[in-house]
Amino acid sequence: MRVGIFDSGLGGLLTARYVRALHPQADILYYGDTAHLPYGDKSPAQIQSYVRSITAFLCAQGAELIAVACNTASSVAIEAVYDAAGTVPVLDAITPAVRAFQLHRYAEPVGVIGTYTTIRSGIYRTALEKLGYSVQDLATPLLVPLIEEGWLEHPATHAALDTYLSQISGIQTLLLACTHYPLIEPQIHAYYQHVGQKVEILNTAALLAEEIVRNLPPRGSGFFSCWLSDPNPRFLALAERFWEAPILPIPAPIA
Amino acid sequence: MRVGIFDSGLGGLLTARYVRALHPQADILYYGDTAHLPYGDKSPAQIQSYVRSITAFLCAQGAELIAVACNTASSVAIEAVYDAAGTVPVLDAITPAVRAFQLHRYAEPVGVIGTYTTIRSGIYRTALEKLGYSVQDLATPLLVPLIEEGWLEHPATHAALDTYLSQISGIQTLLLACTHYPLIEPQIHAYYQHVGQKVEILNTAALLAEEIVRNLPPRGSGFFSCWLSDPNPRFLALAERFWEAPILPIPAPIA
Repeated sequence: MRVGIFDSGLGGLLTARYVRALHPQADILYYGDTAHLPYGDKSPAQIQSYVRSITAFLCAQGAELIAVACNTASSVAIEAVYDAAGTVPVLDAITPAVRAFQLHRYAEPVGVIGTYTTIRSGIYRTALEKLGYSVQDLATPLLVPLIEEGWLEHPATHAALDTYLSQISGIQTLLLACTHYPLIEPQIHAYYQHVGQKVEILNTAALLAEEIVRNLPPRGSGFFSCWLSDPNPRFLALAERFWEAPILPIPAPIA
Repeated sequence: MRVGIFDSGLGGLLTARYVRALHPQADILYYGDTAHLPYGDKSPAQIQSYVRSITAFLCAQGAELIAVACNTASSVAIEAVYDAAGTVPVLDAITPAVRAFQLHRYAEPVGVIGTYTTIRSGIYRTALEKLGYSVQDLATPLLVPLIEEGWLEHPATHAALDTYLSQISGIQTLLLACTHYPLIEPQIHAYYQHVGQKVEILNTAALLAEEIVRNLPPRGSGFFSCWLSDPNPRFLALAERFWEAPILPIPAPIA
């Protein structure tokens, strides 16, 4: 059984890597919509039209489970995915995170950082407030380009984190609501250590990966294929940073 | 006579503003392809397909002159614009800058900074080297998102400039080969003052604006219209930062 994982770009490869780490035989079809990235500042209508085509493409390639690794798409376009997936089951990036907040009682206030569109949708805020949490959410749109530049330890990344995280000071739990952000989790920890705050960090990519693995059969062939809608060579180095292994992307039809 | 100015996003509004400053009666049709921004890390084939539709749209709206305010599109997709424009004349962002280097003798080495795709195309390097200049070019992909976040004076912007500009140290002239960059020209000046270098800064947006005005009749009605392919409210504040006046974008057909 093949799981089709997609993202606006390459961040979802981190989810794929977590899946592979938990389940080395998992069969993974990956689609990165690099022709349209970033989704984070596009409108819901745009994103819905992209994800519809991607879902249909992955199903046509034999995916029997669809996982939306992109928080932005999960926030504003999940109905379009359901619609295109038909009878194929769909996992989104948000439900596993919300369920984690339901199963365990995390310390509050809870901070949520993500792209402009994810935060603007209010999806995490609404869900967590329903569970009785007090929430401080914040759009942090520079973190994706900083990570894509590979500047994980760069002063610009630290300066951006200083500005962003100081705007949600006082939180006790922080949800990384974007697939890219786990790559700078050490820098986020360093920030809190520096300012002397104890903050627990949760990452939606890891929670989604666990959910995917729970839905896969125990046996598989370890198949992996990666399509990119725009296979610009620039993305190769970045893809390998997320996947932590060489990767040979296949040009895909534009969503 | 109306000039149709387009860009991948909002940066070209700076060119439009320069045109208006030089020629208050200029009639301007502006198209910002916010549904597909940023062009700077997309492939030439993708960008060609976008600019073809935009050019046709602007011509259908009555543009009798097309100006490609986007350096990336000018670098890798100008033939597609010519093709779609038919008999309507086309100005690109690169020729006026190259002509400036031909008419005046600027001190060298010349630094060129722009998006990943612009720099990778080598278009400025090739043209300037043909004129006998020694050139150091560098992709500086974080500057656009930093400017779009409005962090003109933020430590992250200064840190990014430190890293980027130190990689082309020794230059005597710097060409800002991206429509966004003039917004941080003061910060770039501050960097060179800080490191004690004298560097002359040239900006392609201003040079293109002068070229547009040379091609417009002296009279006009001062008409201005702004279409955005994705009129996300997020872009409004940014549009007004470039245009320096309130703006009411019209949703446009997707390119």
